[in-house]
Amino acid sequence: MKTKIEPKTLKGFRDFLPQEAKKRQYVIDAMKKVFELYGFEPLETPALEYEDILVGKYGEEGDKLMYRFEDNGGRKVALRYDQTIPLARIIAQYQNIALPFKRYQIQSVWRAENTQKGRYREFLQCDADIVGSASVLSDAETITTAAKSVEALGFKKYKILINDRTIFGEFQKPVITMVDKLKKIGAEKVKQELKAKGFSPKILNELIDKKPTTLVEEIIAAVEQMGIDKKLLDFEPTLARGLDYYTGLIFEIEVDKYNAGSICGGGRYDNLIGLFAGKQIPALGFAFGFDRIIEAMNDQNLFPTTLLNSITKVLVTVFSSQYLSGSLKVVSTLRNAGINAEIYLDEKTGLEKQLKYADKKNISYVVIIGPKEKEKNTAILRNMQTKQQEEVAQKELIKKFR
Amino acid sequence: MKTKIEPKTLKGFRDFLPQEAKKRQYVIDAMKKVFELYGFEPLETPALEYEDILVGKYGEEGDKLMYRFEDNGGRKVALRYDQTIPLARIIAQYQNIALPFKRYQIQSVWRAENTQKGRYREFLQCDADIVGSASVLSDAETITTAAKSVEALGFKKYKILINDRTIFGEFQKPVITMVDKLKKIGAEKVKQELKAKGFSPKILNELIDKKPTTLVEEIIAAVEQMGIDKKLLDFEPTLARGLDYYTGLIFEIEVDKYNAGSICGGGRYDNLIGLFAGKQIPALGFAFGFDRIIEAMNDQNLFPTTLLNSITKVLVTVFSSQYLSGSLKVVSTLRNAGINAEIYLDEKTGLEKQLKYADKKNISYVVIIGPKEKEKNTAILRNMQTKQQEEVAQKELIKKFR
Repeated sequence: MKTKIEPKTLKGFRDFLPQEAKKRQYVIDAMKKVFELYGFEPLETPALEYEDILVGKYGEEGDKLMYRFEDNGGRKVALRYDQTIPLARIIAQYQNIALPFKRYQIQSVWRAENTQKGRYREFLQCDADIVGSASVLSDAETITTAAKSVEALGFKKYKILINDRTIFGEFQKPVITMVDKLKKIGAEKVKQELKAKGFSPKILNELIDKKPTTLVEEIIAAVEQMGIDKKLLDFEPTLARGLDYYTGLIFEIEVDKYNAGSICGGGRYDNLIGLFAGKQIPALGFAFGFDRIIEAMNDQNLFPTTLLNSITKVLVTVFSSQYLSGSLKVVSTLRNAGINAEIYLDEKTGLEKQLKYADKKNISYVVIIGPKEKEKNTAILRNMQTKQQEEVAQKELIKKFR
Repeated sequence: MKTKIEPKTLKGFRDFLPQEAKKRQYVIDAMKKVFELYGFEPLETPALEYEDILVGKYGEEGDKLMYRFEDNGGRKVALRYDQTIPLARIIAQYQNIALPFKRYQIQSVWRAENTQKGRYREFLQCDADIVGSASVLSDAETITTAAKSVEALGFKKYKILINDRTIFGEFQKPVITMVDKLKKIGAEKVKQELKAKGFSPKILNELIDKKPTTLVEEIIAAVEQMGIDKKLLDFEPTLARGLDYYTGLIFEIEVDKYNAGSICGGGRYDNLIGLFAGKQIPALGFAFGFDRIIEAMNDQNLFPTTLLNSITKVLVTVFSSQYLSGSLKVVSTLRNAGINAEIYLDEKTGLEKQLKYADKKNISYVVIIGPKEKEKNTAILRNMQTKQQEEVAQKELIKKFR
């Protein structure tokens, strides 16, 4: 045997052991269900893209945080940084895609973030976007899909903050960058920054006093018609969202009792796809911050308690090698009936250790077939939670798990 | 608008548009179901690992094909090359994992393969492994899980080739490498190579004439007890499998009428985890070649025809802006009833174009609410395949899709 290699995970990267992986799968499944209910279809793009495709689309910060390298063939490549730019590439590359194109995409993205802020360098993004529609209906449908996803995850109280990017008028870019920090640094500091950069600090107050634009009013009306309570929607004229590429609607969703930031954000970006397609194609969408969702759901106990149990419902123990074939018959019957079942994988292990295994893995039921049971074609069924045992005819076992 | 950027995918990498992405999801779901039925739980590991963890584990070829680079912090990192080494790392790193540990892992791996051979540089692997059991039962369960997965995907005829790595005896390593090429280059060439390397060409015939080892006999008996027909199992003494790390059982699954190679392969690797853990921990498992499965299923029409339809079952058209609210009401009712439905996202588009959209996207049904229907609280329901239309009371619509 060679020298031992130290087992460790890269900083900012994570392993997800079954307990966590199951939670992640639960959230993904719930979201996919809503996305598909609203007519979004799945899309997958590669982890690696030509660097040219990605660089320059996420601002200076983005270029700095991007994982870039030269591959074995000397190509300059970069790891997926988000899923919006790859979508824009797709639309330009496959001309036969029917528009409007509604797609969802749930894949990892990689950013060399400062991990001290509790940020990760590999994380899952859950996006839904509509390409090829400029209508208010598509604005409303995007918001509704996001809101219904939040509800499907079990969040009872949430707020949809909505704004119109055109509200920032002629000062758009520099002002957006400063106003974007409002929640983080407060109004006074934003005013100081505005002044320092040669803008009137009054801009902030003027913004705060703004009335909803016609677009915002129309969107709110349509969202309501799609079944979302109007009270959940807040016009927020200082909502800026950092990215350069937004052109109209921008929105964020915040859930009650979770203060680490919004769990969802998005908006309209009518000029982005043109960078690749050579012609303007309107588009909009949103991304869920997967880790924030998991965190908020943990805080608020929104995961079903059944997720704490093992995926395996029943462990069939092995009394001794003499009784192995009986146990194998039972476990096969259970599996053929669609019941997740394990057989203890060593016939030489004592029963006590087998029960401990079931306990440690949170398996709900244990089946024991010893000499007496074999004789009578029965089995001992033990509920691992209540510790209660009963003797059950082997052919009645399946019914017990239905 | 800046200069247009050419939209293209890296060589060996692939985009999966909805039609393909849905097939992939179908295969993943079918496998996960079987894996969970047999007691395997999900695990996720990062895309990037420290280079030290991966290098030297896959032979010279592996080191050459690995995507390796220096990250922004100067760390030498590599993209996941398979899922077995990360699993070995996990076992060593998290001492509190209950053994036997049965996990499945379905993630992308990256290899800078020669794409001319129809190979890809990013592809999905579907692994299931058992760590911490040396028993024949775990050998048998591994094979059974793989076989049941093959059946769940719809393959009617398949063969499980099984061998015992110890059959190669003292010549193990050099002989394995040569015998491994038997199917590709034929017996004569293997013999020539054996001779050239200083081995007796008779080794091949001796191998071919070998009787099953006791291990193989025991495994076959146990697999049969787990409900797999004995006839599906073939002892194949020349089955070698390239990787260095196998120590006992090795097996492959071939499906009928698919000649591009086995779709599944695996075996026991009792010394691998020790490289990280510093002590021997027995382990075994298998990996499915996802792309071969998709290819074979396409060839043999094993995907359900419903996968050809859009995920959206119904498109609710918009007659004109005057009738929008009626259409919105209907689409919301359908969605609330769990029926995947879309509303056409532009109220200014003519009905004909809306129907074309449904047709191009393979949406099965279209609902039309015009002036007459609005009056009577009905809707026209059009079956897009048969082109038949019927008038249905709006409140009866849901029933039509159940």
